[in-house]
Amino acid sequence: MPISGFPEWLPSQRIIEQQVLDKIRSTFELYGYASLETRAVEPLDTLLSKGETSKEVYLLHRLQEEENAKREDQLGLHFDLTVPFARFVVENNGKLQFPFKRYQIQKVWRGERPQEGRYREFLQADIDVVNRDTLPFHFDTEMPLVIGDVFRSLPIPEATILVNNRKVCEGFYRGLGLADTAQVLRTVDKLDKIGPEKVAAALVETAGATDAQAAACLALAEISTTDGSFADRVRALGVTDPLLDEGLAELLQVVETANEHAPGLVRAELKIARGLDYYTGTVYETMLKGYERFGSITSGGRYDNLASVGNTRFPGVGISIGVSRLLGLLFGQDALTVSRSVPTCVVVALASDDRRVECDRIASALRRRGIATEVAPTAAKFGKQIQYADRRGIPYVWFPGEPDTVKDIRSGEQVEADAATWAPPAADLHPNVSAR
Amino acid sequence: MPISGFPEWLPSQRIIEQQVLDKIRSTFELYGYASLETRAVEPLDTLLSKGETSKEVYLLHRLQEEENAKREDQLGLHFDLTVPFARFVVENNGKLQFPFKRYQIQKVWRGERPQEGRYREFLQADIDVVNRDTLPFHFDTEMPLVIGDVFRSLPIPEATILVNNRKVCEGFYRGLGLADTAQVLRTVDKLDKIGPEKVAAALVETAGATDAQAAACLALAEISTTDGSFADRVRALGVTDPLLDEGLAELLQVVETANEHAPGLVRAELKIARGLDYYTGTVYETMLKGYERFGSITSGGRYDNLASVGNTRFPGVGISIGVSRLLGLLFGQDALTVSRSVPTCVVVALASDDRRVECDRIASALRRRGIATEVAPTAAKFGKQIQYADRRGIPYVWFPGEPDTVKDIRSGEQVEADAATWAPPAADLHPNVSAR
Repeated sequence: MPISGFPEWLPSQRIIEQQVLDKIRSTFELYGYASLETRAVEPLDTLLSKGETSKEVYLLHRLQEEENAKREDQLGLHFDLTVPFARFVVENNGKLQFPFKRYQIQKVWRGERPQEGRYREFLQADIDVVNRDTLPFHFDTEMPLVIGDVFRSLPIPEATILVNNRKVCEGFYRGLGLADTAQVLRTVDKLDKIGPEKVAAALVETAGATDAQAAACLALAEISTTDGSFADRVRALGVTDPLLDEGLAELLQVVETANEHAPGLVRAELKIARGLDYYTGTVYETMLKGYERFGSITSGGRYDNLASVGNTRFPGVGISIGVSRLLGLLFGQDALTVSRSVPTCVVVALASDDRRVECDRIASALRRRGIATEVAPTAAKFGKQIQYADRRGIPYVWFPGEPDTVKDIRSGEQVEADAATWAPPAADLHPNVSAR
Repeated sequence: MPISGFPEWLPSQRIIEQQVLDKIRSTFELYGYASLETRAVEPLDTLLSKGETSKEVYLLHRLQEEENAKREDQLGLHFDLTVPFARFVVENNGKLQFPFKRYQIQKVWRGERPQEGRYREFLQADIDVVNRDTLPFHFDTEMPLVIGDVFRSLPIPEATILVNNRKVCEGFYRGLGLADTAQVLRTVDKLDKIGPEKVAAALVETAGATDAQAAACLALAEISTTDGSFADRVRALGVTDPLLDEGLAELLQVVETANEHAPGLVRAELKIARGLDYYTGTVYETMLKGYERFGSITSGGRYDNLASVGNTRFPGVGISIGVSRLLGLLFGQDALTVSRSVPTCVVVALASDDRRVECDRIASALRRRGIATEVAPTAAKFGKQIQYADRRGIPYVWFPGEPDTVKDIRSGEQVEADAATWAPPAADLHPNVSAR
């Protein structure tokens, strides 16, 4: 029986997922990110140390183990890839070269209530850069370029990366005279959920804001531009603060680098803050055209204080693609299609059982040259063997004979062929994924 | 802190693992196996229904959930990929094309005591074929060919696939007059652990064998040949039984097909039985030359009764490569090496911070043509930038100028180059894995 929140794809969907993952991986590697996999489990204390809500963690225990393990021995499944990565860096910092650029594509688990595009087990694809002591800011500008290249390599709707910088918000709130900037940030973060009026009321009530201060916070949150003009609009609000200036300069650098790389890729969206506590500067989200109502499909940001060993800090910046979320939404709208449900490019027809050795030799010759080939499972009339291929979307059926022939079952065209030299057009070698 | 039994590879080891997985995947696909991933969890009842020992299962519960979930609601992590696959086939049989050939490369978890090459979390790579009602025997002959092709594509010691057939053993025991063939099989399976004398004694004691019958069982278990001569040696023991004849004919077919494909690939080893109860015919193991003391690195066999819906059975045959086990053993002997610890092929040297845009353009041009490129993280003397590349094993450093030049830091050779056209030799494009 299916288990709610634990999605499983059918073979055709899995081929689409694989091709998406291949593109993600190759793009990450083009930018020099090295692959890493961490274990699925972490000690409970590690999982709970980063300000995450505790209710979403899955704990493990062995069926036959003694009851009541001590809390420090309890293991839980990781709920993201950033916390395990920070732990890995601290644990192995003497063996790594810094700055350390890594990508990590793994399942994560959260015991939350499932809904469309929200799962209890799901696949994430993360990149992060960490360095010892300080991390140059230009790595913050690289994240949108990598994500943009990934998305432009996929047959999916246009993606816009939304960027902001917590220093802008915090500096602005401070410059306004609001001391509890964290509380203001948390309140403004609810804007999309509860609307501006309730946010204004909450700011007055919980953050000690005047009506004018609350209105200024909302005016800041309204700013949204695809170029550097956001900075002038912020300054026009008349608030000054050194942290605000620093944040605006950083955000400008992210927006300008992205526009140089691919115009329209990013949008400075000053209302986004990200729920997580550990971000300290740049933050990222991504909206997919036509799927905005389902929320962001990437998330990330700069974290200067997530990992440390003694007095040594390991600041980092990273971004995570919600792969299961993205695919779940696209599959839900039936937005993607694939040309076949198997990797097989050629089926060798089997006229009678005593000719299987001959057919196996043909298949071996084709496989040696990288052409995925199956021999028909049972001897049958050729019509049935064409049907075997057709049902799976396999484009070619090979007929052993003197000479051998190969038939493109889509066009019906049949030509003489030699298993030592014949090759399909490159476009037929692997299944083709496209937008429907 | 590391957790015993939950291995994590360093970046260089992970690159080796990735290349091994790429070879496994491409070989599986060349034979027409389609990728599948199942969720990491199964209901406890599913996990315990196949005769597996219960103590190795990891159960899940949410940190904040109510105590004492009913047993049918309890979820556990899968301990292999065959049981989840059988469940998936039953659940989705109306949506699949049969015979269904799938591969599955995923982590599995077992709460066993860790030892060298034995983990609590480990990666397996499985292929299986299932069909509705009956499955042609020739699929049993395909498994060793696929595994042989995988192993011959890797820079690892020679692998020998050991094959047997439970029908040979059961038919022989029955023909000998021993009724409790399962008990005989379980006892003979301990041969390597407790030796022939204790096995003989146990056969007399627990399976009701006479000394002569016990001796005959041991004589059968001693037979080991790389060609079809095992059949004559079995017949020379003077036992006859229809099931024995069927088993010998099947085993002969496996050995002959493998010898036609790659001489020396398999060995008929009549003592192997595999612990699992669900195998009904062919069984497979694999020994790696020089690593025999660590046991088998693949396992599998024919299972005719693992999955069914009403009166419809789904017989199957499959084999599983213990990827973490294989790599753990090879890493433990330091047997593999890789040319670099990052995917990066080229580092673009940065003379001063104001030239970063120019360097980024060069990097983009190289990436567009599939060449993994990083820009140096900070402006520094060129000696330091060469050191950055050298420490990671990156072969090329690019110097922007008029004209640009690129230096092979291994040979010291430096040549003029244009980012729009220059390419490294194919052998330098990706990290190279080799035997040390």
